[in-house]
Amino acid sequence: MEMKMDQAALQAFLDRDFPQVAGMFAFVEVAPPVVSMALIASDQHLRPGGTVSGPSMFGLADVCAYFCILSVLGPVGLAVTTNCSIDFMRKPPPGRLICRMELLKLGRALAVCEGRIFSEGAQDKPVARASLTYSIPPTG
Amino acid sequence: MEMKMDQAALQAFLDRDFPQVAGMFAFVEVAPPVVSMALIASDQHLRPGGTVSGPSMFGLADVCAYFCILSVLGPVGLAVTTNCSIDFMRKPPPGRLICRMELLKLGRALAVCEGRIFSEGAQDKPVARASLTYSIPPTG
Amino acid sequence: MEMKMDQAALQAFLDRDFPQVAGMFAFVEVAPPVVSMALIASDQHLRPGGTVSGPSMFGLADVCAYFCILSVLGPVGLAVTTNCSIDFMRKPPPGRLICRMELLKLGRALAVCEGRIFSEGAQDKPVARASLTYSIPPTG
Amino acid sequence: MEMKMDQAALQAFLDRDFPQVAGMFAFVEVAPPVVSMALIASDQHLRPGGTVSGPSMFGLADVCAYFCILSVLGPVGLAVTTNCSIDFMRKPPPGRLICRMELLKLGRALAVCEGRIFSEGAQDKPVARASLTYSIPPTG
Repeated sequence: MEMKMDQAALQAFLDRDFPQVAGMFAFVEVAPPVVSMALIASDQHLRPGGTVSGPSMFGLADVCAYFCILSVLGPVGLAVTTNCSIDFMRKPPPGRLICRMELLKLGRALAVCEGRIFSEGAQDKPVARASLTYSIPPTG
Repeated sequence: MEMKMDQAALQAFLDRDFPQVAGMFAFVEVAPPVVSMALIASDQHLRPGGTVSGPSMFGLADVCAYFCILSVLGPVGLAVTTNCSIDFMRKPPPGRLICRMELLKLGRALAVCEGRIFSEGAQDKPVARASLTYSIPPTG
Repeated sequence: MEMKMDQAALQAFLDRDFPQVAGMFAFVEVAPPVVSMALIASDQHLRPGGTVSGPSMFGLADVCAYFCILSVLGPVGLAVTTNCSIDFMRKPPPGRLICRMELLKLGRALAVCEGRIFSEGAQDKPVARASLTYSIPPTG
Repeated sequence: MEMKMDQAALQAFLDRDFPQVAGMFAFVEVAPPVVSMALIASDQHLRPGGTVSGPSMFGLADVCAYFCILSVLGPVGLAVTTNCSIDFMRKPPPGRLICRMELLKLGRALAVCEGRIFSEGAQDKPVARASLTYSIPPTG
């Protein structure tokens, strides 16, 4: 799949369109059909013991899928999540969480992504996996 | 299913064990196997236009499922979400969101819940539906 | 939601378009947005002990969602399943299985259904729950 | 993850415990934590145009996940599917379908697998993706 937005373009889009959450996420790699992002956890994302909360991991997977789609589709602001299935498999230790998301299908009306979340340096022991469907607005 | 924790007991558990999020959620009804909770949205949960974010709706479904299970299981602190499948169907208008969650199965090792999220007063037009599985720690 | 196809119309559609599986399923109730169907299990659907196989329950949920959508949408042959999330909660005892499916959203491009499968007469102890998304072909 | 059952052992288990479906599936590769299997489609799995039905693809993913778990766990007959989320992304052309399933987690009570289904020779254009959870019986 051809890249329509590189890391700088995605970062600018994130800063402009999602100012409330821009500081929570950092791009790690933009290599369509794969985009990886990190969660910059603050106290609001943590649970006792320093573990990252489920909604925070959901949010990381969701934003990473969104930018994975935009990297191939271009700056379309109206794609919306229609479905997410997420499995939490291990309790994340304190530290930086990475989501590696892959675009499996970019259709006329739907895009499907699949990815894994893991602690930095521990890609072989994912803490979660997620698949997401986005609805793509009609063009024209 | 017999009630092991009523609304006051669940509220006390929420206040004590989840102080970071206790102010975000309010109990609406505790009638096992059904528990309904409301999201008290603040700026961090909103997106442009006043719509509630996906991760906030995920968080509402997750906490509501948790307390739905506790209402029947009793005060077991170690149940953890293992899976969630959520469909976002409509964009929520500004205003209070309610999640109505039902416990479908409470097994030895797993509990399964299913519920819908809707704007207060618009139960027939759900904005999202979700099913969640929790792992129950072994007793003994 | 207004009914566009009644039980006789759905049955005729099933007989004509799905002759390979028509004998496997029977309509129980057509009351949009709810449609209920039964699985007429034969040896190929059973596992040792007389329990119905997972793929057979998936097939029952899938066909029931399809006709649930058609009951409101009318005879559109090209709707396709894009996602299904299914939880198997109890082992079905030998006997007739019913799926009760509800159409939660019929949008321009997507339809979302949610339902439960249970042994006839035991609706309060569902053996499975499922949510399905169908893609609706563009008209015009 | 260490291999506890090789391809010959899995094939013998399939032949003995699942005689109704043994002829429908063939092992392609057993390399834990990955197991790949093929669906040997007959008329009952096909839809008009020669495309493989959704329930047949679900069945392929389900059996492949089961043997993926057994390859690492050993010959435990009582693991049962508790959840499956499956996305159908493209219509499979006529021809052999392969499922490549990976075991992501083998816990005390739950195992989680994730995989893709594709037409032989077209692994980069998956027709479906699926994630499945199995419940592992307690050992005594």
